[in-house]
Amino acid sequence: MSQPPPPRAFAEKLGGAPHSKASLRLWLRLLSCSMIIERRIRGRFEAEFATTLPRFDVMAALEREPDGLTMSQLSAALLVSNGNVTGIVNRLIEELLVVRTLESDDRRVATVRLTRKGRDVFQRMARGHEKWIDKMFAGLTEQQMEQLMKLLASVRHSIDEHEDEQPA
Amino acid sequence: MSQPPPPRAFAEKLGGAPHSKASLRLWLRLLSCSMIIERRIRGRFEAEFATTLPRFDVMAALEREPDGLTMSQLSAALLVSNGNVTGIVNRLIEELLVVRTLESDDRRVATVRLTRKGRDVFQRMARGHEKWIDKMFAGLTEQQMEQLMKLLASVRHSIDEHEDEQPA
Repeated sequence: MSQPPPPRAFAEKLGGAPHSKASLRLWLRLLSCSMIIERRIRGRFEAEFATTLPRFDVMAALEREPDGLTMSQLSAALLVSNGNVTGIVNRLIEELLVVRTLESDDRRVATVRLTRKGRDVFQRMARGHEKWIDKMFAGLTEQQMEQLMKLLASVRHSIDEHEDEQPA
Repeated sequence: MSQPPPPRAFAEKLGGAPHSKASLRLWLRLLSCSMIIERRIRGRFEAEFATTLPRFDVMAALEREPDGLTMSQLSAALLVSNGNVTGIVNRLIEELLVVRTLESDDRRVATVRLTRKGRDVFQRMARGHEKWIDKMFAGLTEQQMEQLMKLLASVRHSIDEHEDEQPA
């Protein structure tokens, strides 16, 4: 969205407890921050590397596993949900940035991994990515960043604690 | 993703400044929190209301504007990016939850708004939505929530400050 207004009118009409209003506003602010950053990163990947965020995400997951990943491990390791992992991997293979091998423990299951060229290409993109993100957070002090890390860890913890509660 | 690991190996190899590493870790944590919450909300909308988050988002935007919105105003007001606003609106019109009128100042441009039925349906979903989110944040004290709101406002401010910096 273009602005991150707390949807106060909306929240007030619902008539809930204060914690619940605060939660709603917090979620909307969290979501809008995350969407704005993601949109900017997508734009930069396109402008500077003529590539996409899902493609970077696939390469980042492979970079973390030099021994390779099966396709299902790869899908599970992705940060950005993206439908067409197979298409992205096939394209990377065509461009010699990724290879598919049968060298894993279970020789029936193919694994994919970055080639040396793929690793080089990835490193260049990763440096850009890190630089863009750092600029976006440039206005925060290290102390603020640390606090934010801790608070987001508490959010994660809180979410996980309430994981089993299924819809009534 | 299933876990929110700081991609330390990845970050260490890049050899940047500490602030830049911290920014990267912070962004990944922010993104994973936001994605996990969003995924949970999508699941709940489907399970409890047989509806989708983009559809809720359209109704929420209309609920905030009792006088209606043009289609382009509506698209701009959406929180979740979603491709098929027209399809969603047409479907809502078929279900008598939304009406399209030519009653705006500029009578050439149609506006859409919620019907009374649409408003009732929306209120029920909004109460569920608020409840789910509140449960996810239940582990946070009010003070932590306030701090997080402030820090995310600083993030927004920092991003906006660096808006004009185009790719080199």
